[in-house]
Amino acid sequence: MDPVVYHPIGVVRSPFDTPEDVPLEPSRSVDAAGRIELEAEYHDGLALLDGFSHIVIVAHLHLIEGYTLRTAPPFVEGLRPGIFATRGPKRPNPIGLTVVRLTDITDAVLHVEGLDLVDGTPVLDIKPHYPKPDEYRGLRGGWIEDNLEQTSE
Amino acid sequence: MDPVVYHPIGVVRSPFDTPEDVPLEPSRSVDAAGRIELEAEYHDGLALLDGFSHIVIVAHLHLIEGYTLRTAPPFVEGLRPGIFATRGPKRPNPIGLTVVRLTDITDAVLHVEGLDLVDGTPVLDIKPHYPKPDEYRGLRGGWIEDNLEQTSE
Repeated sequence: MDPVVYHPIGVVRSPFDTPEDVPLEPSRSVDAAGRIELEAEYHDGLALLDGFSHIVIVAHLHLIEGYTLRTAPPFVEGLRPGIFATRGPKRPNPIGLTVVRLTDITDAVLHVEGLDLVDGTPVLDIKPHYPKPDEYRGLRGGWIEDNLEQTSE
Repeated sequence: MDPVVYHPIGVVRSPFDTPEDVPLEPSRSVDAAGRIELEAEYHDGLALLDGFSHIVIVAHLHLIEGYTLRTAPPFVEGLRPGIFATRGPKRPNPIGLTVVRLTDITDAVLHVEGLDLVDGTPVLDIKPHYPKPDEYRGLRGGWIEDNLEQTSE
């Protein structure tokens, strides 16, 4: 299959300078505030987005080099899930999906909370987060759910 | 910012041959069954994924040409949301996110239900779908929510 080429539409501004600065435990980053600075040419594409409480940021994890097919998740002993069974960043295509709370939009700048992305991360797409009921009912969370008590300690 | 280059990791097999075949009303496609055929080299990356009921497919909408910053959503009169306030396909970077139910994995083939992607769509990434509580509590769904009764008729 042919390679796919995308052009970033904006950039993340966050308090995290390196991947190591981003809290591994998601609950610790949930209040991290930051911005998405959209290129001015895409400003009109934000119309009516301010009615949504949450948005999905599709980001290119530009600092990640290489990938591993089996991983060793933090906080969990002895498990080696495949990379596609995790949210880890060292993926064949280092695409990050993050749901954040949208607190304000000023011109082409989105003010958000709940960021887990490094400052300077290129943004490829922004979508409203409004899941269908089927997306959060009857979920089975595999090894993550099985280790939830352990990871939330 | 530099362009981003990705290499597809697999391909969608679905009953839909063209974008026009994909039901616009999401609830009508929710039972569409299909497959993700992963390239054999990534097989090991699926370890432990079978414990998850739902997965996120990150797809390149390869048949989409060009984009529009303001849209005219189906079923809704008189609204012109920006493209980033919709899930419409004609985006600056035509990336599709779809949550599907994972029914089985055989070798490097994922059997799924709830597809809204065209047969032959390149797949860029696969992630477990296991949202944090903050991602589905207290949601405000903007123009989509405001028009939900209308669109579900």
